[in-house]
Amino acid sequence: MTASTAKEDNIRAGRVEGTPVFSTNGEYLGTVEDLVIGKRDGRVKYAIMSFGGFLGIGEEYHPLPWDMLDYDEAQKGYVVPVTKEQLASAPRFSARAEPDWQDEAYHRDVEGFYGQSRRP
Amino acid sequence: MTASTAKEDNIRAGRVEGTPVFSTNGEYLGTVEDLVIGKRDGRVKYAIMSFGGFLGIGEEYHPLPWDMLDYDEAQKGYVVPVTKEQLASAPRFSARAEPDWQDEAYHRDVEGFYGQSRRP
Repeated sequence: MTASTAKEDNIRAGRVEGTPVFSTNGEYLGTVEDLVIGKRDGRVKYAIMSFGGFLGIGEEYHPLPWDMLDYDEAQKGYVVPVTKEQLASAPRFSARAEPDWQDEAYHRDVEGFYGQSRRP
Repeated sequence: MTASTAKEDNIRAGRVEGTPVFSTNGEYLGTVEDLVIGKRDGRVKYAIMSFGGFLGIGEEYHPLPWDMLDYDEAQKGYVVPVTKEQLASAPRFSARAEPDWQDEAYHRDVEGFYGQSRRP
């Protein structure tokens, strides 16, 4: 018991990238492509999840607030409390139109969307 | 003035990787290879800096506490308050002997080393 509480829960960012993401009801949603971090506060803000497309063409990206992701050993992937249907109306972008990660308003949109969808 | 304070300071992890690291007196120390993040607390713990070696052979890695890194626009790289000489005795590892990132004692060692070397 003391041993497990003394353990830290760290992982290389490179190990997170490429990890699949599932909904709580087991649908495959996409794959973690990158992370967005705060330079000054040192916080992981989002996992950027890619979905769809072929060889990068038509691919879409969803920023998922990091604290929404739970790792599930059995599925070897992250689980998020969002259905595929909800994702369809979630903030997303294409490789050609990456959002300005410095823009506070964009973050409010993303947090607002998932903040609402997380309520029961 | 208000505009600049409303800006967030975010960056993709993929943009951090590959960025050079310099000492405060301008020596090239290495290149950011990966980040270590806390899964649960969502904090960036270290930048893993690679140095030396050729095609990965003989390469060495130094975990640098994230809050030590300052980005310098002019050099297009990070600056850390550590000399090349100090790095020689800093915690390091080879690709074959990656530390256990869950091990709290290892983190105390790293923080201890840089905590001391940062004092004037």
